[in-house]
Amino acid sequence: MRFGVLGTGWVGKAIATKLIEVGHEVRLGSRHTDSPVVAQWVKENGDRASGGTLAEAAEFAEIVFNCSAGLGTMEALEAAGANNLADKIIIDLANPVIASGRIEPPTLDIANIDSLGERIQRRYPASRVVKTLNTINFNVMVNPDLVPGDHVVFVSGDDQDAKDQTAAILGEFGWPADRIVDLGDITTARGVEMYIGLFSRLFLKYRHVNFNITIVKDPDAVPILSPDS
Amino acid sequence: MRFGVLGTGWVGKAIATKLIEVGHEVRLGSRHTDSPVVAQWVKENGDRASGGTLAEAAEFAEIVFNCSAGLGTMEALEAAGANNLADKIIIDLANPVIASGRIEPPTLDIANIDSLGERIQRRYPASRVVKTLNTINFNVMVNPDLVPGDHVVFVSGDDQDAKDQTAAILGEFGWPADRIVDLGDITTARGVEMYIGLFSRLFLKYRHVNFNITIVKDPDAVPILSPDS
Repeated sequence: MRFGVLGTGWVGKAIATKLIEVGHEVRLGSRHTDSPVVAQWVKENGDRASGGTLAEAAEFAEIVFNCSAGLGTMEALEAAGANNLADKIIIDLANPVIASGRIEPPTLDIANIDSLGERIQRRYPASRVVKTLNTINFNVMVNPDLVPGDHVVFVSGDDQDAKDQTAAILGEFGWPADRIVDLGDITTARGVEMYIGLFSRLFLKYRHVNFNITIVKDPDAVPILSPDS
Repeated sequence: MRFGVLGTGWVGKAIATKLIEVGHEVRLGSRHTDSPVVAQWVKENGDRASGGTLAEAAEFAEIVFNCSAGLGTMEALEAAGANNLADKIIIDLANPVIASGRIEPPTLDIANIDSLGERIQRRYPASRVVKTLNTINFNVMVNPDLVPGDHVVFVSGDDQDAKDQTAAILGEFGWPADRIVDLGDITTARGVEMYIGLFSRLFLKYRHVNFNITIVKDPDAVPILSPDS
């Protein structure tokens, strides 16, 4: 498939490189024309790798990965262009964190009663937004076996087919199906974006980011909510 | 030891009952004088159980458990009385959730740039606040073996001795020392309070609350922050 990756930071390069490795065509998109980061990445990643602007990457894509910094995401998507995003899946990995520039936990620009995932979906109603992978470091995103155990990745989105296609890509990245947790509609992006508050404190404790969470459940638990509620 | 438990909901009763079971003296405190909930609890819990107002529970206590509803916590602590709380550990279990009254995830009254734990510590500087147990359901709080695996409980607070005493009580509840994760100072309460956003979505997915998270780490990870930063 043809992917457009928006953003040339650690996350964008890791995702773009992994997509190449598993056999896809990828255009890496930058805010800048003639980005040296993009040129270097294209040079290193063979015939299926290309580069361009955000709009060129989105236009090329069947599926778009948003790997821009969270505070710049809405602007990056505007540059990509609504017409280039329409009828496509936008896989959103960004966290709307306000980096302090110091070694302290970030705060969120959007939280609690809204999320970046929802904001993107509202702005691009013709696209299908899936929030995923934002709860883990970029190295672990594309190499889950770095971390032992049955740790999980979440997906949030309104469109089941878009989530299923996203899960298939996560499978190509190395995530077993039973460790991909579908949280529900795009409003559940609030839960995973706010988790960054805990993630960032664990980072400060462990002083590395190669960790993740697993979920363990009482096997005998009786549902206290009915299936219809 | 003598404990005062503020709040007579599910959490307060579970904590008070467990404290009795492991051998402590407990006074359960209610906003109401002559609370029938308190009277019933005292009747069921033997000679070391007593009841009273919030102020009477706090006065009795060497260590205070705040099990009031998060939105009512500051008012409950005012009723308990600063003089009754001074020089004591306040173990804070509350989440500042705004319940919608419907089956949908709660929003938080305080988040992101502040937390209930910090608010309590600021208001009662002569007390030592430890945030803990707020990330798990009351049944699992006092019976961690309900859930399999190495799932964890967090502690946040400015005073190491207060956190160590809290960890010892968690040990009496059944939490092994290596599953008690000290996140750091009281500002880290933001991380665990915001985790409720994810917890509540997992609750809606699993339709029960007998679950928790474990943390798994790359054993070969190299710290990317220095110990001094």
